[in-house]
Amino acid sequence: MHYDETANKLVRPINQAKITPGMNVDSLVSELDGCAFGAGRLAEAVDIYCDMQRDDTTKFFGFAGAMVPAGMQSIVSDLIRDGYIDVLVTTGANMVHDLVESLGLHHYKGTDITDDVELKHEEINRIYDVFLPEHHFIDFEDKMQSIYGELSSDTISIRELLTHIGSRLDDKNSILKTAADMDVPIYCPAIQDSMIGLQAWLYKQMNPLNVDAFADMKEFIDICYDAKKAGALLIGGGVPKNYIFQSMLVTPNEFDYAIQLTMDTPETGGLSGATLDEARSWGKVGEEARSVTVYADATITLPIIVAAARSRLGK
Amino acid sequence: MHYDETANKLVRPINQAKITPGMNVDSLVSELDGCAFGAGRLAEAVDIYCDMQRDDTTKFFGFAGAMVPAGMQSIVSDLIRDGYIDVLVTTGANMVHDLVESLGLHHYKGTDITDDVELKHEEINRIYDVFLPEHHFIDFEDKMQSIYGELSSDTISIRELLTHIGSRLDDKNSILKTAADMDVPIYCPAIQDSMIGLQAWLYKQMNPLNVDAFADMKEFIDICYDAKKAGALLIGGGVPKNYIFQSMLVTPNEFDYAIQLTMDTPETGGLSGATLDEARSWGKVGEEARSVTVYADATITLPIIVAAARSRLGK
Amino acid sequence: MHYDETANKLVRPINQAKITPGMNVDSLVSELDGCAFGAGRLAEAVDIYCDMQRDDTTKFFGFAGAMVPAGMQSIVSDLIRDGYIDVLVTTGANMVHDLVESLGLHHYKGTDITDDVELKHEEINRIYDVFLPEHHFIDFEDKMQSIYGELSSDTISIRELLTHIGSRLDDKNSILKTAADMDVPIYCPAIQDSMIGLQAWLYKQMNPLNVDAFADMKEFIDICYDAKKAGALLIGGGVPKNYIFQSMLVTPNEFDYAIQLTMDTPETGGLSGATLDEARSWGKVGEEARSVTVYADATITLPIIVAAARSRLGK
Amino acid sequence: MHYDETANKLVRPINQAKITPGMNVDSLVSELDGCAFGAGRLAEAVDIYCDMQRDDTTKFFGFAGAMVPAGMQSIVSDLIRDGYIDVLVTTGANMVHDLVESLGLHHYKGTDITDDVELKHEEINRIYDVFLPEHHFIDFEDKMQSIYGELSSDTISIRELLTHIGSRLDDKNSILKTAADMDVPIYCPAIQDSMIGLQAWLYKQMNPLNVDAFADMKEFIDICYDAKKAGALLIGGGVPKNYIFQSMLVTPNEFDYAIQLTMDTPETGGLSGATLDEARSWGKVGEEARSVTVYADATITLPIIVAAARSRLGK
Repeated sequence: MHYDETANKLVRPINQAKITPGMNVDSLVSELDGCAFGAGRLAEAVDIYCDMQRDDTTKFFGFAGAMVPAGMQSIVSDLIRDGYIDVLVTTGANMVHDLVESLGLHHYKGTDITDDVELKHEEINRIYDVFLPEHHFIDFEDKMQSIYGELSSDTISIRELLTHIGSRLDDKNSILKTAADMDVPIYCPAIQDSMIGLQAWLYKQMNPLNVDAFADMKEFIDICYDAKKAGALLIGGGVPKNYIFQSMLVTPNEFDYAIQLTMDTPETGGLSGATLDEARSWGKVGEEARSVTVYADATITLPIIVAAARSRLGK
Repeated sequence: MHYDETANKLVRPINQAKITPGMNVDSLVSELDGCAFGAGRLAEAVDIYCDMQRDDTTKFFGFAGAMVPAGMQSIVSDLIRDGYIDVLVTTGANMVHDLVESLGLHHYKGTDITDDVELKHEEINRIYDVFLPEHHFIDFEDKMQSIYGELSSDTISIRELLTHIGSRLDDKNSILKTAADMDVPIYCPAIQDSMIGLQAWLYKQMNPLNVDAFADMKEFIDICYDAKKAGALLIGGGVPKNYIFQSMLVTPNEFDYAIQLTMDTPETGGLSGATLDEARSWGKVGEEARSVTVYADATITLPIIVAAARSRLGK
Repeated sequence: MHYDETANKLVRPINQAKITPGMNVDSLVSELDGCAFGAGRLAEAVDIYCDMQRDDTTKFFGFAGAMVPAGMQSIVSDLIRDGYIDVLVTTGANMVHDLVESLGLHHYKGTDITDDVELKHEEINRIYDVFLPEHHFIDFEDKMQSIYGELSSDTISIRELLTHIGSRLDDKNSILKTAADMDVPIYCPAIQDSMIGLQAWLYKQMNPLNVDAFADMKEFIDICYDAKKAGALLIGGGVPKNYIFQSMLVTPNEFDYAIQLTMDTPETGGLSGATLDEARSWGKVGEEARSVTVYADATITLPIIVAAARSRLGK
Repeated sequence: MHYDETANKLVRPINQAKITPGMNVDSLVSELDGCAFGAGRLAEAVDIYCDMQRDDTTKFFGFAGAMVPAGMQSIVSDLIRDGYIDVLVTTGANMVHDLVESLGLHHYKGTDITDDVELKHEEINRIYDVFLPEHHFIDFEDKMQSIYGELSSDTISIRELLTHIGSRLDDKNSILKTAADMDVPIYCPAIQDSMIGLQAWLYKQMNPLNVDAFADMKEFIDICYDAKKAGALLIGGGVPKNYIFQSMLVTPNEFDYAIQLTMDTPETGGLSGATLDEARSWGKVGEEARSVTVYADATITLPIIVAAARSRLGK
């Protein structure tokens, strides 16, 4: 009889979620736990994230997309401060925008329905619905040239450069500053591909600056080797996702926990949208690992996951 | 000087959101209010939804996508019961799944990574990561044939058919039942395109059944005509979105509030992903109307919006 | 040894496609046949489409999305004329735009970067990057009221209504006209949800008009019953996709061939983006059926598939 | 009267495309030129690409996504050989897969519906629907270690490293080889983030290897400075898109032509999906530049654009 065979596929009825006034985020997520589609995946992501925090896990955080301009800076710096992140891999752009904010300069709420040529004439740069005054980059340039000027001519790694930058900042909300304070390393393989890179090009025209592209791979891979367990929370895909996964690949270890918050879907064939199951074929994510992808805007799902996890873990 | 000109574009700095343990959903949304991308849009959706509820607004609800299988049934029936919805336009499928749940039968948490041929052999129908036993449709057929049998041979409208069905159910979580109880009309232009339609085909083989495709358009358009103000919360796009908008088009009125929760993007050119600005060119949405589209999974955004709105409105 | 086991997974090397000047579409598709991602799927779609045409197959065509405004009208009417389509299921909107074109009125190339309020003042309706003058609907109204006026007060089906409309047109590029001429039935479950529906509402205010919502289900399902083999080419998802699949469900038959051209992805959980494998769990698509989904803009992939298929089939 | 004002918005009727057997790609694209949505954009992309080739333009090519595994290698190496590309910016992964192919090793047609744990046991790595035997990386490692061994201990740039690698290959279809032969520089800011990077880590454990992360920025930006006109064809987004655009930003020049082939949409707020209009606000793309984004799978649109352009340009 087929019902015996299928019994294990029909064990958990979908919960028709109930919403109440005053509900806290943790309760909302618990209510969504029995739902399907994105709601169910979000609840699963919270479960995995909490288990990964409770366990003796080396916690990687992949940080792609214009998340600092969108308002996610403090969430990340607070996660670093409170021990939720051991290793951060990021795009250069997020660090540039972190620096801009750390100088007391702001990004502004704008709109994506606009005349971009008019914006150009007004010296406003647009990032979807965020407006950034171009003149902020004058202060940014001063700061960066000064920071580069304090480096010796010794060859350093990109991670060391970012630690150096963080140590020169004075803003507790800054990701770079908080990471430097907390000894959380920040890796950024494509550092050239950012205003930090452009400032390096400018500085290098008159001064020595020796940053070795491959120098920090050893320490990163050593972290992977030494991990008793490993977990990754990936915001977007891009270089951070791939770099975190490929580094684990050359060790005997695998990721035990993996969460991906993204709008990229697998159907394009690109790595950013690749499923975490695909990563199992490579041995990046373990056969028995707990993993989930939440296909929804990370500026919505990250705050929810963090709010629910902080409630459950009491920190 | 360009700063004078642009002053009004740079008035509201992005808020770097802060998350705290125990935070309730309303506070989280308030924290996201100063953020950009989906986070900012979600907060704006809550604002618009609350204003639309406070105002003397005729409140339309467009309901596409497999939302009942995903666990959104009670959220919608509770919104109807508590006066958040005046008119519901839906796909047939959501009403079929509402009926299935109202019979005490369940949808089950499944997975999208599966062998569909094996599922077929096990008589399990899949809806993304939801499993639905095929034999539920035996009870469904009994119920529907019985319901059709209670109809006279008079010509009725689709709305009348759905009211009749709702009045024959006995489950307070049912959308059909709650709408019938609360005198909230349900419209479903593509009713044939569902198991309710297939049951009509079956019934019609031996019995008279006269449902006029155009009969309920007058009452729907009259509702549009009579609206002092009009607001729409659209879950997904499809027929419900278009039907709500086109009906307003033939009246002197326009939508004053419009919220769209969808993963469809404008770039395909289809109506489901069309922006609410495009709807202004037609006069469906008013020139001065407040509108926002949140591009994220509605099974996540709908519960958040409802939780935050219920907190703010205290009901 | 694992190579024996895996031998069958590594039999066909990816072809690195070569492009030559003057290449015809058929050759291009053949070159893409050995590629992966969308390229490989497109080539597979052509193969399946040709086999489905050669075989004694009942050929269904699902037609969603604003395809006529985008310029796909003649492709479809030519396919009907040349025997590529036996049954058409469509949204109302595509038939409205077919009617507009058949009156010698045009859609215009516009832009999606525009001021929609300005467009409204200029009485231009926007469909993504297509502009449609509002006054076209004056001629449309005259035509439709006249067409409705020629109907008797007998109860008819939606299919009969569409055949009647087609028979009153005089434009060989018209889909409605060509289908009427070729005895290809057109089904449109959500006919109310269109300007044709709004004209029915208007006509019904003063005149009898009796269109039975369920009346054409029997003939549609009979077509499904009688099909020796069945194939479906689905442009977009929506009602046409679901209606075609659900009708087959109540017969002992299944689709033997299925092709889906869409930008909707499965991750939203909706039917439009559901995989054709999911359809196997329901028995809509057969266990052994050949099926493929091409995730790319149908205004690009449909012309390519048609051009390649016409070359191969010589008609 | 508003028709005078709007006259210029309604000048070009949509062309209802006609498809004929044997049609070549160039004719198909011409037929789509008067269509809307993706079809119209594709035709516009061909126009822009041809103008950009005819003009005295410095031609940048951004190359993200797993395009070599999907079968796009020869298209790109042929474009380099025939003078269509002056500067290539790529992800590391595409160069790794180019190297694998250049060793006579293959990628294989697979499927995305599969058991990834089973694949892992069979030592097959999956890239969406491409299968890659893990043991290919043994030959890859031998080759890369040998190539690194031929470098002196002098500090080199990433571009120099890639030229060196290309010069050591012996396969005319190889992108690296063809670029080295044709003196087309290849830039890859995130080179660490690839198997080439992992091989560098391995090599560096026992040997000196000095690759300066910022060393090639000067020559890249000098190319931007020296460009009389500049054009970019961007496959996907990611680092290549941003790096090409940011480098132009620090020069007095701007891009005069820009084409983007992508499935990323603007709604996520990320750079990959950002519109080319957004790039105008920054001054990356010129105010008067011709630009278009085609939202469709690049494995389909790139071959079409190349086939049509080669026909028109006769090379």
